[in-house]
Amino acid sequence: MEHVKILDHGYLGLVEAWGSDEAIIGAARMSTNKGFLGWGPSCSKCGLRMVRVGDLDEVSPADYARSEDQKNCDHDASVPGDEKLLRYLYEHKHHTPFEMAGLTFEAQAPIFVFREWHRHRVPFGYNEMSARYTPLPDLNYIPSVERLLMNSAKNKQAGVVSGSATLTEGPAEHYRSELRRAYARDQELYERALQMGVPKELARVHLPVGRYSRMRATANLRGWLGFMTLRSAPDAQWEIRQFSLAIGDVIKRVFPRTWELFAEGTGHG
Amino acid sequence: MEHVKILDHGYLGLVEAWGSDEAIIGAARMSTNKGFLGWGPSCSKCGLRMVRVGDLDEVSPADYARSEDQKNCDHDASVPGDEKLLRYLYEHKHHTPFEMAGLTFEAQAPIFVFREWHRHRVPFGYNEMSARYTPLPDLNYIPSVERLLMNSAKNKQAGVVSGSATLTEGPAEHYRSELRRAYARDQELYERALQMGVPKELARVHLPVGRYSRMRATANLRGWLGFMTLRSAPDAQWEIRQFSLAIGDVIKRVFPRTWELFAEGTGHG
Amino acid sequence: MEHVKILDHGYLGLVEAWGSDEAIIGAARMSTNKGFLGWGPSCSKCGLRMVRVGDLDEVSPADYARSEDQKNCDHDASVPGDEKLLRYLYEHKHHTPFEMAGLTFEAQAPIFVFREWHRHRVPFGYNEMSARYTPLPDLNYIPSVERLLMNSAKNKQAGVVSGSATLTEGPAEHYRSELRRAYARDQELYERALQMGVPKELARVHLPVGRYSRMRATANLRGWLGFMTLRSAPDAQWEIRQFSLAIGDVIKRVFPRTWELFAEGTGHG
Amino acid sequence: MEHVKILDHGYLGLVEAWGSDEAIIGAARMSTNKGFLGWGPSCSKCGLRMVRVGDLDEVSPADYARSEDQKNCDHDASVPGDEKLLRYLYEHKHHTPFEMAGLTFEAQAPIFVFREWHRHRVPFGYNEMSARYTPLPDLNYIPSVERLLMNSAKNKQAGVVSGSATLTEGPAEHYRSELRRAYARDQELYERALQMGVPKELARVHLPVGRYSRMRATANLRGWLGFMTLRSAPDAQWEIRQFSLAIGDVIKRVFPRTWELFAEGTGHG
Repeated sequence: MEHVKILDHGYLGLVEAWGSDEAIIGAARMSTNKGFLGWGPSCSKCGLRMVRVGDLDEVSPADYARSEDQKNCDHDASVPGDEKLLRYLYEHKHHTPFEMAGLTFEAQAPIFVFREWHRHRVPFGYNEMSARYTPLPDLNYIPSVERLLMNSAKNKQAGVVSGSATLTEGPAEHYRSELRRAYARDQELYERALQMGVPKELARVHLPVGRYSRMRATANLRGWLGFMTLRSAPDAQWEIRQFSLAIGDVIKRVFPRTWELFAEGTGHG
Repeated sequence: MEHVKILDHGYLGLVEAWGSDEAIIGAARMSTNKGFLGWGPSCSKCGLRMVRVGDLDEVSPADYARSEDQKNCDHDASVPGDEKLLRYLYEHKHHTPFEMAGLTFEAQAPIFVFREWHRHRVPFGYNEMSARYTPLPDLNYIPSVERLLMNSAKNKQAGVVSGSATLTEGPAEHYRSELRRAYARDQELYERALQMGVPKELARVHLPVGRYSRMRATANLRGWLGFMTLRSAPDAQWEIRQFSLAIGDVIKRVFPRTWELFAEGTGHG
Repeated sequence: MEHVKILDHGYLGLVEAWGSDEAIIGAARMSTNKGFLGWGPSCSKCGLRMVRVGDLDEVSPADYARSEDQKNCDHDASVPGDEKLLRYLYEHKHHTPFEMAGLTFEAQAPIFVFREWHRHRVPFGYNEMSARYTPLPDLNYIPSVERLLMNSAKNKQAGVVSGSATLTEGPAEHYRSELRRAYARDQELYERALQMGVPKELARVHLPVGRYSRMRATANLRGWLGFMTLRSAPDAQWEIRQFSLAIGDVIKRVFPRTWELFAEGTGHG
Repeated sequence: MEHVKILDHGYLGLVEAWGSDEAIIGAARMSTNKGFLGWGPSCSKCGLRMVRVGDLDEVSPADYARSEDQKNCDHDASVPGDEKLLRYLYEHKHHTPFEMAGLTFEAQAPIFVFREWHRHRVPFGYNEMSARYTPLPDLNYIPSVERLLMNSAKNKQAGVVSGSATLTEGPAEHYRSELRRAYARDQELYERALQMGVPKELARVHLPVGRYSRMRATANLRGWLGFMTLRSAPDAQWEIRQFSLAIGDVIKRVFPRTWELFAEGTGHG
C-alpha cells in the first residue's frame, strides 16, 4: 500500500475504493429509470456529446462514428451533461446516491487523533491495533516548534489557558525535550511492567494519548464528505486536519467531480 | 450487468463488490499488528504453506522457491491457516472486520418485497425508481399456482384466515385471472388519470403493492449477512426469500470462505 | 393517546418524548465540565439571572432569595444565557447533543407515505402493521378536489406528464369516484381471495399504495429535525408534508427553543 | 443524579430512561393491530386476567370489578399473558420493538475504557469532556493489587507477554507506587506546559489513557443489550465490565422482563 507521511510518525494509505462519479449518477437515475448518460454538454440539434478542447472552454464533438446528419451539423452545445445532475444532487442534499461509493483507508496516528476520528459513527467501520493484545510500538507524537507556536485564533477554546505566558521558540524547544523524556520514561515503565508480569491490558494504562496506534477505517463517500466537512475545517485540531486533507487528496483523485462540488461548497481547497 | 431472473418479472444483478475474504483478515489483524498470512495449513517444522491436493484432504507444499531445509523437511502440516481466524471472528461475533467488504446490487421486485427489504436500515443505502417522478412500467406480480398452493406451515401467521376454504388448483388458476384483470383495470385507470392531468405523484395512489419497481441497494458484508439471516430463513416470505437466496449465490462466489461459515451457522445452504 | 387527524383517514399521536432543551445543553456542557446554567441573560455585576417582563424586551431579576449586594445592584443584563450555546451548537452543526432527546409517534397514513418515511434509516426505528399477519383495514386515501388541483410548481418532476389535459374541478370530482370504485373492487377481491384460502401474505398483492397502514416510529431529535428538513420542505409531497408539519407542532411544544432555531434556519414556520 | 461508584474514581448515573416493557409489546403489536394486553395468564373460560399470589406459582383473579359469570367461574389460567410475546420477540431476534425504549447514562471512566465504549457506534450517541477545551481533572486509574493479580485465563491474548515473571503481591504494590509517581509527573508537566502557553489541545498529548474523563452516552434498549452482550462477557476487559454490569443493574430495575430474557440468553446474571 502506498502511504503519505503525516506528522512525525503517522501515515495514510488507500486500501481500496469502490464506486465512481458515474456510479453515483447511475444510482440517482434509478428514480427516473435512466442510467449514466455522459459528462459534458451535447448538441441540442444532433445529440452528439461534446468534449472540451485542451484548456479552452471550447467544445467539439468526440471523434467517434456518427451519421451524415451529425457530421453536417453546426453544433449547438447547449444540452448540459450529467455534471448538472451531480450538482443538483449535491446542492439539494440528495445524499443517498453518494452512499453507492466509498473508501477504506489505513492510518497511523496518535491516539488522541483516533479519539476524534471515532466520533464519526455512521456509516463508519474501524479495526484498530489493540494494546490489550499486542504491545504498542514505541512511537510518540512530538509537535514541531512551528506547530507549538501556531496561532489558534480560529478556535480560541482550544488555545492557551488564561493567565499563561506567551510561548516562544526557546521554551517551545525546551518543552519538546521534556516531552521526549516523559515519553521515554513511559516506555521504560511500560516495558518493565510487561516484564514484571503485569497483563498487557493493564500495563498500558499510563501510555499517553500521543502514542501512535494504527487502524483501518471504512465508510461510504457520503460519510467521508461529512468527516471532511468537520475535520478539514479551520477550527478542527491541526493534527486530525492533516489526515482529513490527505483523505481529500485521495477523493479528489478517485471522485474528481464530487470533490469539485465539495470543495466549492465548503471552501476547503 | 448480468441478471438472474426472479419471480415473473423481477431480477437481481451485481453492480459491484469490494473487499475480499483476505481483506477481512487483513483488517482483523490490525489489532495484533500483522496482515493476511495465508489460507491452508503450514508446516510446523519448516514453515512452508501447504496446499490441498485435488479433492483429497491431503496437503503438499506449494510449488515455489524454497530453501534446502524446506526441501528436505518431512512436513507436518499442523499450523492452521487464516481460515482459523476467520472462523474465530465469525463465531465470536467480531463483526467489524466484515464491514470492510461489501456489495451493491440492482433489483427489480414487487413493491411489497421492497417494503420488507427497506426495513434493513443500517448499514444499507437505497436508490429506487419513484412513481412521483416517472410513470411506473406496467409490470405486476402474479403468483404461480404452485406458489399459491404452497404450504405455509412454517409461518402460520402469514397463512390463511380462519374459516377460509382450502385452496386448490382450479380456484387458484381462477384467482390468477382475476388478479390479471384487476392489474389491467389499475393500469387503465392509471394511464387515464395521467392523461386527465392528475399529477404523477397522485395518479399512483391506487397502484398495487404487487407492482414492480427497481432499485440499487448497497451495504457492507456484515449488513448482507444480517439480511440473509432473516430473509433466507424458512419463515421469511417466499418472494423476498428468492432475492435473498440469489444474493447468497453471489456472496458464495465473491466471499467463498465467509459464505461457508454463514451457511454452516444458519443452516441456509 | 391524543391524535391529530391528517388526510381523510390518517392521524398522528405522540407516544412519548424524552430529553428537553435543557438536557441538550447539559450534554453539550460535558465537553467543558459544566451543566445547564439557565435561560435568559444574567447580570454582569451581581450574577443574578434575569427574566423577561411580559411581552417587552425588558428584563428584571427573578424574584427569589438574594444577597444584599444583589438587591442593591443596578443590574446590567449583558451576560447571555444558555440560549446562546444552543444557537451555537445548532448553527455550527454540533449535532450530537440533539441525540440526547427524542420522540416516538404513532401514525396512520397511506402506504406510499410510509414508503417515503422509511427512507429515513438512521437513527429511526419502526414497527408497522403487516398485511402478512393481519388483514389491513379497508381505509384508502382519496385526495380532495382541492388537492388534485394543487399547483405543483414547486416540484415539476412530480407534476403532470407532458401532453396531458389541464385538470379542472369536474374531471377531478369524476376521478375521485373512479378511485372510490377502484378501491371498492380491490377490497371485494381481497376479501374474496382471503375466503378462497389465498394466504394473507399473497392476498395483499393487489392492495393499492393508497391503502392506510399504521406504525410507531421512533428517533432522536436530531433524526426528526433531519426528517422535517426534507419532508416539510415545499418540494416534498403534500401528503407526507402534512405529517411532517404535525410532527413539527409537537416538537415546537416539547422542545420550544430547539424548534425556534430549526424554524429560523429552514424557513419552515 | 444518583451515582454508583466504579473503579477508584469512576461512576455511573442514570440521566433518563424512556419506554417500558409494556411499550415494547405495544410497538410489536402494531403488526397485528392490537396493543399491550397484560402480563400474567388469563382464564380460558371467562377471560379474567390472573395475578400471582405471593411467592407461590398459584394464580388468582385480580381483585377488580367482574361480571356474575366471572365470579362463578372455576378459572383455568391457561392463556399466556404478554410475557409469551416478549419472549418470542427476544428469542426470534425481532429486535425492532426494543428500539422503542432507551436510556441515557452519565459515566466517569478512564480514557481506555471510553475507547472501547466508543466502538459501539449504532445507535449510540456520546458527548464527552474534551481536553481540547478544558484541562482534564487530575484523576487517574490505579488498578488494585487484587485486580493486578487477577487471573486472565478467560482471555489469554489480553494477558502477560511471554517470558515475563509471575506477578505477586509485593511487586504489584511496587508497580502501583511507580504508576502513582508516573501520573504525578504527568500532571506536573501538564500544568507546567499550560502555564508556559502550550495550547490546551497540545498540552494533553502525554496524558495517559488511564486518565479519567466524563461523558453522557445514549442508546435505545436494543443498543444497550448489544453493548452488554459483549462488555459483560467473561472475555471483556474487567474495567469496562464493571460499567456494563452497573448498566445491567439499571436495566434490571427499569425493564425487568426484558432483563430476565437477556440474562437467561447470555448467562449474565
